[in-house]
Amino acid sequence: MKTFHVSVGVSNHHVHLTAKDIEALFGAGYQLAVKKELSQPGEFAAEETVTLVGPRGQVPGVRILGPARKNTQVEITMADNIKLGITAPVRDSGNLEGSGSVVIEANDQRISLKEGVIVAARHLHASTRDAAEYGLRDRDVVQAKIDGPRGGILENILVRVSPTYSLDLHLDIEEANAMGLKNGDKVTILAD
Amino acid sequence: MKTFHVSVGVSNHHVHLTAKDIEALFGAGYQLAVKKELSQPGEFAAEETVTLVGPRGQVPGVRILGPARKNTQVEITMADNIKLGITAPVRDSGNLEGSGSVVIEANDQRISLKEGVIVAARHLHASTRDAAEYGLRDRDVVQAKIDGPRGGILENILVRVSPTYSLDLHLDIEEANAMGLKNGDKVTILAD
Repeated sequence: MKTFHVSVGVSNHHVHLTAKDIEALFGAGYQLAVKKELSQPGEFAAEETVTLVGPRGQVPGVRILGPARKNTQVEITMADNIKLGITAPVRDSGNLEGSGSVVIEANDQRISLKEGVIVAARHLHASTRDAAEYGLRDRDVVQAKIDGPRGGILENILVRVSPTYSLDLHLDIEEANAMGLKNGDKVTILAD
Repeated sequence: MKTFHVSVGVSNHHVHLTAKDIEALFGAGYQLAVKKELSQPGEFAAEETVTLVGPRGQVPGVRILGPARKNTQVEITMADNIKLGITAPVRDSGNLEGSGSVVIEANDQRISLKEGVIVAARHLHASTRDAAEYGLRDRDVVQAKIDGPRGGILENILVRVSPTYSLDLHLDIEEANAMGLKNGDKVTILAD
Protein backbone atom coordinates (compact mmCIF):
# COMPACT_ATOMS: atom_id res chain seq x y z
CA MET A 1 0.00 0.00 0.00
CA LYS A 2 1.40 3.39 -1.07
CA THR A 3 0.11 6.52 0.61
CA PHE A 4 0.63 10.17 -0.27
CA HIS A 5 -1.08 13.50 0.30
CA VAL A 6 -2.94 15.56 -2.29
CA SER A 7 -5.07 18.69 -2.30
CA VAL A 8 -8.79 18.57 -2.91
CA GLY A 9 -10.34 20.55 -5.77
CA VAL A 10 -14.06 21.04 -5.15
CA SER A 11 -16.40 21.51 -8.14
CA ASN A 12 -19.86 22.95 -8.08
CA HIS A 13 -22.11 22.28 -11.07
CA HIS A 14 -20.66 23.66 -14.32
CA VAL A 15 -20.80 23.26 -18.08
CA HIS A 16 -18.21 22.77 -20.80
CA LEU A 17 -19.45 23.96 -24.20
CA THR A 18 -18.36 23.31 -27.76
CA ALA A 19 -17.39 26.34 -29.85
CA LYS A 20 -20.59 25.71 -31.81
CA ASP A 21 -22.78 25.76 -28.67
CA ILE A 22 -21.03 28.91 -27.41
CA GLU A 23 -21.94 30.57 -30.71
CA ALA A 24 -25.51 29.20 -30.60
CA LEU A 25 -26.02 30.84 -27.20
CA PHE A 26 -23.91 33.99 -27.45
CA GLY A 27 -23.52 34.71 -31.18
CA ALA A 28 -21.02 34.10 -33.96
CA GLY A 29 -17.36 34.47 -32.98
CA TYR A 30 -18.17 35.00 -29.29
CA GLN A 31 -15.25 34.54 -26.89
CA LEU A 32 -15.85 33.60 -23.24
CA ALA A 33 -14.49 36.12 -20.72
CA VAL A 34 -12.01 34.70 -18.20
CA LYS A 35 -13.19 35.20 -14.61
CA LYS A 36 -10.63 32.97 -12.86
CA GLU A 37 -7.87 30.52 -13.81
CA LEU A 38 -8.42 26.97 -12.51
CA SER A 39 -5.97 24.47 -11.01
CA GLN A 40 -5.61 22.56 -14.30
CA PRO A 41 -3.39 24.60 -16.67
CA GLY A 42 -5.30 26.50 -19.39
CA GLU A 43 -8.71 25.89 -17.82
CA PHE A 44 -10.74 28.84 -16.58
CA ALA A 45 -14.06 29.78 -15.04
CA ALA A 46 -15.83 32.14 -17.44
CA GLU A 47 -17.80 35.23 -16.49
CA GLU A 48 -20.76 33.72 -18.36
CA THR A 49 -23.27 31.40 -16.73
CA VAL A 50 -26.22 29.39 -18.06
CA THR A 51 -29.54 28.22 -16.68
CA LEU A 52 -30.31 24.50 -16.86
CA VAL A 53 -33.97 23.66 -17.53
CA GLY A 54 -35.43 20.23 -16.86
CA PRO A 55 -38.94 18.80 -16.77
CA ARG A 56 -39.36 19.58 -13.04
CA GLY A 57 -37.43 22.80 -12.55
CA GLN A 58 -34.48 25.04 -13.28
CA VAL A 59 -30.96 25.51 -11.96
CA PRO A 60 -29.74 29.07 -12.67
CA GLY A 61 -26.24 30.50 -12.44
CA VAL A 62 -24.33 27.46 -13.67
CA ARG A 63 -20.80 28.56 -14.52
CA ILE A 64 -19.29 27.91 -17.95
CA LEU A 65 -15.74 26.52 -17.77
CA GLY A 66 -13.46 27.24 -20.71
CA PRO A 67 -11.85 26.78 -23.10
CA ALA A 68 -14.30 25.30 -25.64
CA ARG A 69 -14.36 21.49 -25.77
CA LYS A 70 -14.99 18.85 -28.42
CA ASN A 71 -18.27 17.85 -26.72
CA THR A 72 -20.66 19.84 -24.59
CA GLN A 73 -20.70 18.31 -21.11
CA VAL A 74 -22.88 19.42 -18.20
CA GLU A 75 -21.70 18.37 -14.73
CA ILE A 76 -24.37 18.60 -12.06
CA THR A 77 -24.93 17.38 -8.51
CA MET A 78 -27.37 14.71 -7.36
CA ALA A 79 -29.36 17.57 -5.77
CA ASP A 80 -29.61 19.20 -9.22
CA ASN A 81 -30.93 15.92 -10.65
CA ILE A 82 -33.83 16.20 -8.19
CA LYS A 83 -34.45 19.90 -8.89
CA LEU A 84 -34.37 19.40 -12.66
CA GLY A 85 -36.33 16.14 -12.59
CA ILE A 86 -33.70 14.23 -14.55
CA THR A 87 -31.52 11.20 -13.75
CA ALA A 88 -28.05 12.04 -15.02
CA PRO A 89 -25.73 9.14 -14.14
CA VAL A 90 -22.43 9.16 -12.20
CA ARG A 91 -19.87 9.01 -15.00
CA ASP A 92 -16.26 9.73 -15.81
CA SER A 93 -15.72 12.92 -17.80
CA GLY A 94 -16.09 12.25 -21.52
CA ASN A 95 -18.15 9.07 -21.08
CA LEU A 96 -21.39 10.62 -22.30
CA GLU A 97 -23.18 7.89 -24.26
CA GLY A 98 -26.69 7.52 -22.88
CA SER A 99 -26.08 10.19 -20.23
CA GLY A 100 -28.64 12.80 -19.19
CA SER A 101 -30.55 15.32 -21.26
CA VAL A 102 -31.28 18.98 -20.42
CA VAL A 103 -32.04 22.36 -21.97
CA ILE A 104 -29.29 24.99 -21.64
CA GLU A 105 -30.42 28.63 -21.63
CA ALA A 106 -28.32 31.78 -21.78
CA ASN A 107 -28.57 35.19 -23.33
CA ASP A 108 -32.24 34.55 -24.29
CA GLN A 109 -31.16 31.59 -26.41
CA ARG A 110 -31.60 27.91 -25.68
CA ILE A 111 -30.09 24.67 -26.88
CA SER A 112 -31.48 21.22 -26.22
CA LEU A 113 -28.77 18.79 -25.20
CA LYS A 114 -29.82 15.21 -26.04
CA GLU A 115 -27.03 13.68 -23.96
CA GLY A 116 -24.03 15.01 -22.07
CA VAL A 117 -25.34 15.58 -18.54
CA ILE A 118 -23.42 13.66 -15.86
CA VAL A 119 -22.70 13.66 -12.15
CA ALA A 120 -18.90 13.64 -12.32
CA ALA A 121 -17.25 10.58 -10.82
CA ARG A 122 -14.50 11.23 -8.30
CA HIS A 123 -11.11 11.36 -9.93
CA LEU A 124 -7.48 12.15 -9.23
CA HIS A 125 -5.51 14.26 -11.70
CA ALA A 126 -1.79 13.56 -11.83
CA SER A 127 0.98 14.77 -14.11
CA THR A 128 3.18 12.15 -15.76
CA ARG A 129 5.88 13.12 -13.29
CA ASP A 130 3.55 12.79 -10.25
CA ALA A 131 2.41 9.41 -11.58
CA ALA A 132 6.00 8.17 -11.86
CA GLU A 133 6.80 9.44 -8.37
CA TYR A 134 3.80 7.71 -6.78
CA GLY A 135 3.74 4.59 -8.99
CA LEU A 136 0.38 5.41 -10.60
CA ARG A 137 -0.84 4.62 -14.09
CA ASP A 138 -3.64 6.24 -16.06
CA ARG A 139 -6.97 4.56 -15.15
CA ASP A 140 -5.72 3.11 -11.86
CA VAL A 141 -8.37 3.18 -9.15
CA VAL A 142 -7.37 4.49 -5.72
CA GLN A 143 -9.00 5.46 -2.42
CA ALA A 144 -8.84 8.63 -0.34
CA LYS A 145 -8.72 8.70 3.46
CA ILE A 146 -10.32 11.76 5.03
CA ASP A 147 -9.86 12.76 8.67
CA GLY A 148 -12.16 14.75 10.93
CA PRO A 149 -15.68 14.37 12.34
CA ARG A 150 -17.07 13.71 8.84
CA GLY A 151 -14.12 11.52 7.91
CA GLY A 152 -13.99 8.19 6.14
CA ILE A 153 -12.76 6.59 2.94
CA LEU A 154 -13.88 7.41 -0.58
CA GLU A 155 -13.43 4.46 -2.94
CA ASN A 156 -13.47 4.11 -6.74
CA ILE A 157 -11.34 7.16 -7.50
CA LEU A 158 -10.19 7.01 -11.12
CA VAL A 159 -6.63 8.21 -11.77
CA ARG A 160 -6.15 10.36 -14.88
CA VAL A 161 -2.56 11.01 -15.93
CA SER A 162 -1.52 13.68 -18.43
CA PRO A 163 1.70 15.68 -18.83
CA THR A 164 -0.22 18.92 -18.19
CA TYR A 165 -2.29 17.89 -15.15
CA SER A 166 -1.75 19.26 -11.67
CA LEU A 167 -2.02 16.78 -8.82
CA ASP A 168 -5.41 17.08 -7.15
CA LEU A 169 -8.45 15.08 -6.15
CA HIS A 170 -11.61 16.31 -7.83
CA LEU A 171 -14.78 15.97 -5.75
CA ASP A 172 -18.13 17.60 -6.26
CA ILE A 173 -19.55 19.98 -3.68
CA GLU A 174 -21.80 17.35 -2.13
CA GLU A 175 -18.91 14.91 -1.72
CA ALA A 176 -16.76 17.64 -0.19
CA ASN A 177 -19.52 18.80 2.17
CA ALA A 178 -20.32 15.22 3.17
CA MET A 179 -16.71 14.62 4.17
CA GLY A 180 -16.15 18.02 5.81
CA LEU A 181 -13.71 19.14 3.10
CA LYS A 182 -13.06 22.54 1.53
CA ASN A 183 -11.18 23.43 -1.61
CA GLY A 184 -7.43 23.07 -0.98
CA ASP A 185 -7.75 20.73 2.02
CA LYS A 186 -5.33 17.79 2.12
CA VAL A 187 -6.33 14.13 2.06
CA THR A 188 -4.38 10.88 1.98
CA ILE A 189 -4.47 8.76 -1.16
CA LEU A 190 -4.29 4.99 -0.62
CA ALA A 191 -3.04 3.14 -3.70
CA ASP A 192 -2.22 -0.57 -4.09
CA MET B 1 -15.54 -7.04 13.93
CA LYS B 2 -19.33 -7.39 13.84
CA THR B 3 -21.18 -6.52 10.65
CA PHE B 4 -24.90 -6.12 10.01
CA HIS B 5 -27.17 -4.39 7.54
CA VAL B 6 -29.34 -1.35 8.21
CA SER B 7 -31.53 0.99 6.17
CA VAL B 8 -30.55 4.56 5.51
CA GLY B 9 -32.82 7.44 6.54
CA VAL B 10 -31.95 10.57 4.58
CA SER B 11 -32.70 13.99 6.10
CA ASN B 12 -32.96 17.25 4.26
CA HIS B 13 -32.70 20.46 6.31
CA HIS B 14 -35.46 20.72 8.94
CA VAL B 15 -36.34 22.39 12.21
CA HIS B 16 -37.56 21.16 15.58
CA LEU B 17 -39.42 23.87 17.52
CA THR B 18 -40.35 24.32 21.15
CA ALA B 19 -44.06 24.74 21.94
CA LYS B 20 -43.22 28.36 22.78
CA ASP B 21 -41.58 28.99 19.39
CA ILE B 22 -44.49 27.30 17.57
CA GLU B 23 -46.83 29.74 19.34
CA ALA B 24 -44.52 32.70 18.63
CA LEU B 25 -44.68 31.93 14.89
CA PHE B 26 -48.20 30.57 14.47
CA GLY B 27 -50.22 31.89 17.42
CA ALA B 28 -51.36 30.77 20.87
CA GLY B 29 -52.43 27.14 21.12
CA TYR B 30 -51.40 26.36 17.52
CA GLN B 31 -51.03 22.66 16.69
CA LEU B 32 -48.80 21.53 13.81
CA ALA B 33 -50.60 19.57 11.08
CA VAL B 34 -49.20 16.08 10.41
CA LYS B 35 -48.08 15.67 6.80
CA LYS B 36 -46.25 12.34 7.13
CA GLU B 37 -45.20 9.95 9.90
CA LEU B 38 -41.40 9.43 10.11
CA SER B 39 -39.39 6.27 10.76
CA GLN B 40 -38.90 7.08 14.45
CA PRO B 41 -42.20 6.38 16.32
CA GLY B 42 -44.23 9.50 17.18
CA GLU B 43 -42.16 11.81 14.95
CA PHE B 44 -43.76 13.49 11.98
CA ALA B 45 -43.12 15.94 9.16
CA ALA B 46 -45.52 18.87 9.58
CA GLU B 47 -47.40 20.63 6.80
CA GLU B 48 -45.81 23.86 8.02
CA THR B 49 -42.44 25.11 6.79
CA VAL B 50 -40.23 28.04 7.77
CA THR B 51 -37.73 30.28 6.01
CA LEU B 52 -34.26 30.55 7.48
CA VAL B 53 -32.66 33.99 7.18
CA GLY B 54 -28.92 34.56 7.59
CA PRO B 55 -26.58 37.48 6.96
CA ARG B 56 -25.90 36.40 3.34
CA GLY B 57 -29.19 34.86 2.20
CA GLN B 58 -32.31 32.84 2.84
CA VAL B 59 -33.32 29.19 2.71
CA PRO B 60 -37.10 28.88 2.20
CA GLY B 61 -39.34 25.83 2.57
CA VAL B 62 -37.58 24.24 5.54
CA ARG B 63 -39.89 21.58 6.97
CA ILE B 64 -40.89 21.60 10.64
CA LEU B 65 -40.64 18.17 12.28
CA GLY B 66 -42.94 17.47 15.21
CA PRO B 67 -43.79 16.99 17.95
CA ALA B 68 -42.61 20.06 19.89
CA ARG B 69 -39.23 19.64 21.60
CA LYS B 70 -37.58 20.98 24.73
CA ASN B 71 -35.14 23.07 22.63
CA THR B 72 -35.50 24.58 19.19
CA GLN B 73 -32.96 22.92 16.90
CA VAL B 74 -32.32 23.79 13.27
CA GLU B 75 -30.56 21.12 11.19
CA ILE B 76 -29.07 22.40 7.94
CA THR B 77 -26.63 21.23 5.30
CA MET B 78 -23.14 22.57 4.65
CA ALA B 79 -24.57 24.06 1.43
CA ASP B 80 -27.14 25.96 3.55
CA ASN B 81 -24.29 27.32 5.70
CA ILE B 82 -22.86 28.92 2.54
CA LYS B 83 -26.24 30.26 1.34
CA LEU B 84 -27.07 31.72 4.75
CA GLY B 85 -23.57 33.02 5.44
CA ILE B 86 -23.27 31.25 8.78
CA THR B 87 -20.95 28.56 10.12
CA ALA B 88 -23.13 26.09 11.99
CA PRO B 89 -20.91 23.25 13.26
CA VAL B 90 -21.24 19.48 12.74
CA ARG B 91 -22.80 18.35 16.02
CA ASP B 92 -24.79 15.55 17.61
CA SER B 93 -28.45 16.34 18.09
CA GLY B 94 -29.02 18.19 21.39
CA ASN B 95 -25.41 19.40 21.66
CA LEU B 96 -26.26 23.03 20.95
CA GLU B 97 -23.96 25.10 23.17
CA GLY B 98 -22.14 27.62 20.99
CA SER B 99 -23.81 26.29 17.83
CA GLY B 100 -25.06 28.47 14.97
CA SER B 101 -27.46 31.41 15.01
CA VAL B 102 -30.23 32.19 12.50
CA VAL B 103 -33.55 33.98 12.10
CA ILE B 104 -36.60 31.73 11.63
CA GLU B 105 -39.53 33.22 9.69
CA ALA B 106 -43.01 31.80 9.17
CA ASN B 107 -46.53 33.14 8.93
CA ASP B 108 -45.21 36.75 8.79
CA GLN B 109 -43.57 36.30 12.18
CA ARG B 110 -39.91 35.90 13.01
CA ILE B 111 -37.85 34.62 15.89
CA SER B 112 -34.13 35.13 16.34
CA LEU B 113 -32.40 31.94 17.42
CA LYS B 114 -29.18 32.77 19.33
CA GLU B 115 -27.91 29.19 19.15
CA GLY B 116 -29.34 25.88 18.00
CA VAL B 117 -28.28 25.62 14.36
CA ILE B 118 -26.21 22.52 13.57
CA VAL B 119 -25.18 20.30 10.69
CA ALA B 120 -26.33 16.97 12.13
CA ALA B 121 -23.57 14.44 12.71
CA ARG B 122 -24.10 10.98 11.22
CA HIS B 123 -25.77 8.66 13.69
CA LEU B 124 -27.29 5.22 13.99
CA HIS B 125 -30.59 4.79 15.82
CA ALA B 126 -31.10 1.41 17.49
CA SER B 127 -33.77 0.05 19.80
CA THR B 128 -32.63 -1.55 23.06
CA ARG B 129 -33.47 -4.89 21.46
CA ASP B 130 -31.45 -4.15 18.27
CA ALA B 131 -28.55 -3.00 20.44
CA ALA B 132 -28.58 -6.26 22.40
CA GLU B 133 -28.77 -8.30 19.20
CA TYR B 134 -25.80 -6.51 17.61
CA GLY B 135 -23.75 -5.94 20.77
CA LEU B 136 -24.03 -2.15 20.65
CA ARG B 137 -24.13 0.33 23.50
CA ASP B 138 -25.43 3.88 23.52
CA ARG B 139 -22.65 6.27 22.37
CA ASP B 140 -20.61 3.54 20.63
CA VAL B 141 -18.98 4.77 17.43
CA VAL B 142 -19.30 2.58 14.33
CA GLN B 143 -18.57 2.79 10.59
CA ALA B 144 -20.75 2.18 7.55
CA LYS B 145 -19.58 0.46 4.35
CA ILE B 146 -21.32 1.64 1.21
CA ASP B 147 -21.14 -0.20 -2.13
CA GLY B 148 -21.48 1.18 -5.64
CA PRO B 149 -19.63 3.68 -7.84
CA ARG B 150 -19.81 6.32 -5.08
CA GLY B 151 -19.01 3.78 -2.38
CA GLY B 152 -16.68 3.99 0.56
CA ILE B 153 -16.67 4.01 4.34
CA LEU B 154 -18.26 6.63 6.59
CA GLU B 155 -16.55 6.83 9.97
CA ASN B 156 -17.51 8.45 13.29
CA ILE B 157 -21.12 7.27 13.36
CA LEU B 158 -22.55 7.76 16.83
CA VAL B 159 -24.88 5.01 18.08
CA ARG B 160 -27.99 6.18 19.93
CA VAL B 161 -29.99 3.52 21.75
CA SER B 162 -33.51 3.98 23.05
CA PRO B 163 -36.40 1.53 23.62
CA THR B 164 -38.52 3.41 21.06
CA TYR B 165 -35.96 3.86 18.24
CA SER B 166 -36.17 2.08 14.91
CA LEU B 167 -32.91 0.77 13.49
CA ASP B 168 -31.62 3.12 10.83
CA LEU B 169 -28.61 5.16 9.82
CA HIS B 170 -29.35 8.89 9.65
CA LEU B 171 -27.42 10.78 6.99
CA ASP B 172 -28.06 14.22 5.60
CA ILE B 173 -28.91 14.72 1.95
CA GLU B 174 -25.36 15.72 1.00
CA GLU B 175 -23.88 12.63 2.67
CA ALA B 176 -26.45 10.42 0.94
CA ASN B 177 -25.89 12.04 -2.46
CA ALA B 178 -22.11 11.86 -2.05
CA MET B 179 -22.29 8.13 -1.42
CA GLY B 180 -24.96 7.37 -4.05
CA LEU B 181 -27.59 6.48 -1.44
CA LYS B 182 -31.33 7.02 -1.36
CA ASN B 183 -33.76 6.81 1.54
CA GLY B 184 -34.32 3.13 2.40
CA ASP B 185 -31.12 1.82 0.77
CA LYS B 186 -29.17 -0.78 2.75
CA VAL B 187 -25.62 -0.34 4.02
CA THR B 188 -23.30 -2.50 6.12
CA ILE B 189 -22.43 -1.36 9.64
CA LEU B 190 -18.93 -2.26 10.86
CA ALA B 191 -18.66 -2.33 14.67
CA ASP B 192 -15.74 -3.41 16.87
